[in-house]
Amino acid sequence: MGGDDAPQCVISGTALAMQNDPDLRPILVGDENQLKPLMQNNPILHQAEILHTEDMVTSDEVPSQALRTGKNSSMRLAIDLVKSGEASAVVSAGNSGALMIMALMVLRTIEGIERPALAALFPTLNGPSCMLDLGANIDCSSTNLVQFAAMGDAFYRVIGKVDRPSIGLLNVGEEEQKGSASIREAAAILSDPAIQMNYAGFIEGDGIPMGEAQVIVCDGFSGNVALKTAEGTSKLIGTMIRNSFRATIFSRLGYILARRSFQQLRDMMNPQRYNGAVLLGLNGIVVKSHGGANQDGIANAIKVASDMHRHGFMDDLKNGIARSIDAIEVAQSEKMKSKEETS
Amino acid sequence: MGGDDAPQCVISGTALAMQNDPDLRPILVGDENQLKPLMQNNPILHQAEILHTEDMVTSDEVPSQALRTGKNSSMRLAIDLVKSGEASAVVSAGNSGALMIMALMVLRTIEGIERPALAALFPTLNGPSCMLDLGANIDCSSTNLVQFAAMGDAFYRVIGKVDRPSIGLLNVGEEEQKGSASIREAAAILSDPAIQMNYAGFIEGDGIPMGEAQVIVCDGFSGNVALKTAEGTSKLIGTMIRNSFRATIFSRLGYILARRSFQQLRDMMNPQRYNGAVLLGLNGIVVKSHGGANQDGIANAIKVASDMHRHGFMDDLKNGIARSIDAIEVAQSEKMKSKEETS
Repeated sequence: MGGDDAPQCVISGTALAMQNDPDLRPILVGDENQLKPLMQNNPILHQAEILHTEDMVTSDEVPSQALRTGKNSSMRLAIDLVKSGEASAVVSAGNSGALMIMALMVLRTIEGIERPALAALFPTLNGPSCMLDLGANIDCSSTNLVQFAAMGDAFYRVIGKVDRPSIGLLNVGEEEQKGSASIREAAAILSDPAIQMNYAGFIEGDGIPMGEAQVIVCDGFSGNVALKTAEGTSKLIGTMIRNSFRATIFSRLGYILARRSFQQLRDMMNPQRYNGAVLLGLNGIVVKSHGGANQDGIANAIKVASDMHRHGFMDDLKNGIARSIDAIEVAQSEKMKSKEETS
Repeated sequence: MGGDDAPQCVISGTALAMQNDPDLRPILVGDENQLKPLMQNNPILHQAEILHTEDMVTSDEVPSQALRTGKNSSMRLAIDLVKSGEASAVVSAGNSGALMIMALMVLRTIEGIERPALAALFPTLNGPSCMLDLGANIDCSSTNLVQFAAMGDAFYRVIGKVDRPSIGLLNVGEEEQKGSASIREAAAILSDPAIQMNYAGFIEGDGIPMGEAQVIVCDGFSGNVALKTAEGTSKLIGTMIRNSFRATIFSRLGYILARRSFQQLRDMMNPQRYNGAVLLGLNGIVVKSHGGANQDGIANAIKVASDMHRHGFMDDLKNGIARSIDAIEVAQSEKMKSKEETS
């Protein structure tokens, strides 16, 4: 029931996802009086289940209030399906804050994970990269950052189909002494071979779109700023390109000639292809679609969720977390030892 | 003597700046044996002074070491000229870290300013905006952020020739409760009418390239990440545009037709036009040119420095700081009062 053009857009996106993936078994959670008429014309949707509820979380609701009063909302019931094991994942295009807080309260974090993180893919010169955290946590300790690295590692393995994705730590310089104490401590832990990650060192903001790492780890403040700045810059330049092509009769003709060659750029900049941010670190798969996603975007968010389930993301993540917990403990005990020696 | 193509590039940039501004009186600080032969062919440079020294700070030198051993370096002597009043401003394309630490130690901060901040202009949909801090301070208190706002306000008034530039605080959302405590406190102080700033509220990363504020205030970590991410994204899309035009014979022909219309986009994305980051908050004007700047970039950095001097930046800044100190004190005493009342 969530998103700018709901439930129409969610339903047509679900139909598209079912066409692409015949094994998909969607459960649509919402008001059947609204859903059924929209589903009638598409035979593929007759295989989709409906879990009926008239209650829903609105887009302007304060998250804490949604948590208290939304016990029968479509969002809450969908999360409950993951908790009970009736669903393998939940996908929502609704209120982000409410989804995050409800999912955290219902599903809880995996043992060993202090805080969940929001992750998403975005286009770079070297194919898609993943960045986390994107705004769930403003301040992050070195332990948080190392856990984000383990979560991003498992996520990229599943979605990017890469065995050992490269992991970069976002910083304001590439030299060892740069950045905050928590970043430098996280770097020391990630460099430990016991953690079994393909750690690529510090990367700076300009390294993000250049694809210098496949997984970029950062606190939620700088991650949110970086991703939104990149989106805004793409939008600005996209506007300038359109204006340039429209400026004169010659440039319009030029556009007609160059149009096909610009398809790759248009595809790369198409946000629908990257729709589906993931709340990592919970006991269950939670995918957040952009509220303005079209049916392609919704289908993509559903694909992210089903890929994570099929490729055993949860087990992979638990193993990665176990290794990182060990490495963090070793690093901390060594730090204590060296402190004792110097004192 | 600093920069990738020094001293040739610095000298030709100085000549260009002198052509554009007949009142400019440059003092070139460096090795006259290298400088003189490069200056001979251009008569305009015969009016430039040379302050001779053979010593210089190299690009790979650690800043703290440069500070200790570089007492006779060209960088240090140039800063000393500002300290003694013989020069109105210093412009350097050399080692950024060394310039920052040397300028801070020699010139010291203006009374009332806790920490200097690095500021630069960049292109947006609504003309140039200015962002600070860009990396001089990793962690920032609310007082730091308010002082950055006062510095950015005075800087943009001079460079952007706008009476009351709009001031935005970078955050991860536009709602009041978003972000860290220091950002929320800074927002409360900046909203105070006594501070006499045109405060525009929180802006998110995508608002930066959209030009939602003329001055964007943030801590040095997120500012550095945002600016570099925007630069990297521009570079990525620029590469994609070039590849698209080169892809086929049709697109090449399209390029020839559309070329003139793309000039505006090329101009907007040309980093030389925005060369010249400023270290604000010191008792003197310090401008850092990018090491890779060409002569246009150097001339632009010199213009930034001379504009700041001519338009009375230092006095304007001191007035702004005085107002913001008053407003910070009022805000803090009110906070104390409300604490006393609640306890």
